[in-house]
Amino acid sequence: MSRKLPIIHATRPSPHSRFLGEQVDLEFSNGEKRTYERLLSAGLGAVIVVAVQNDDDTVLLIREYGVGLEHYELGLPKGKLDAGETVLEGANRELKEEAGVGARDLLHLGALSLSPSYMKHVTQIVLARDLYDERLPGDEPEELDVVPWKLSDLHRLISRPDVTEGRSIAALFMAREYLAGRFTLPSE
Amino acid sequence: MSRKLPIIHATRPSPHSRFLGEQVDLEFSNGEKRTYERLLSAGLGAVIVVAVQNDDDTVLLIREYGVGLEHYELGLPKGKLDAGETVLEGANRELKEEAGVGARDLLHLGALSLSPSYMKHVTQIVLARDLYDERLPGDEPEELDVVPWKLSDLHRLISRPDVTEGRSIAALFMAREYLAGRFTLPSE
Repeated sequence: MSRKLPIIHATRPSPHSRFLGEQVDLEFSNGEKRTYERLLSAGLGAVIVVAVQNDDDTVLLIREYGVGLEHYELGLPKGKLDAGETVLEGANRELKEEAGVGARDLLHLGALSLSPSYMKHVTQIVLARDLYDERLPGDEPEELDVVPWKLSDLHRLISRPDVTEGRSIAALFMAREYLAGRFTLPSE
Repeated sequence: MSRKLPIIHATRPSPHSRFLGEQVDLEFSNGEKRTYERLLSAGLGAVIVVAVQNDDDTVLLIREYGVGLEHYELGLPKGKLDAGETVLEGANRELKEEAGVGARDLLHLGALSLSPSYMKHVTQIVLARDLYDERLPGDEPEELDVVPWKLSDLHRLISRPDVTEGRSIAALFMAREYLAGRFTLPSE
């Protein structure tokens, strides 16, 4: 069952923050009216990379400081797309900058949102295979630890206190389902 | 291997948005200095609820309009905690408001972050079992569709274009691992 989308009557910069937010006047199909606030998304979108080695058995995680939670988070390489870059090119660049490897085989697995109720942010998931050593200089303040992790051990990963990011956990399980042949891409 | 945390020398309201952001001056253990920007998190935190029925076989999803992506998203019930509420109480209230059921058995499964690199947002995951019918009025503009989904069919769920939220997908797989006995809570 699919509902009729609400009508958007107006959008305007938020009075709280013109730089980061906007207000949207909505009318739902039942006639109810609401004004919702949402964040704007700067940039061209983002990518998150599931790089696998050893016959799809092991994934490369990185350990990176996150000032949001003020801790070192263990998760997937990710970053924002640069101008003129495709999703697959951006994924390979981020992989080279953060994990020190490139991939000859890159596949777009899907997209993840941060919080569809008030954010426009979407992150493209890329599966990277057939890896080779290549490091590109990034803007990171320090070299990141690369931590190989067995895909069969995701249940141990998710109980770690330094593994918290919803997008990383979701992308890992989605890639595992794909590699097990249980998840088919719309284009396949 | 665990690195020494960077030193935080100063924090100040962001010049771009004092309401939503702040700047943090950091010094990494190798001496590198950076100023990072992060969003502030309003409120008392959030909960996301995996409510299961039929002997842990089926999970209750809801379909809710998200103005961030301007579509109806299929995902887990979730919301912000109210003042004076515990995580489990907030989870049960959101479940009653959004799915029209309460739970006699509530378990805190862990926490998910949105983007630890620049957000403080953390969402607590609650597994809800032993359900009963009870609807509480919420602030939703329309009654939400409740969509039961088999936990054994998560691979079909993640290929849907209206299932995008990283936290929902992560929480569903984490709950499935837990219910299968493959994921142990630190307190158990």
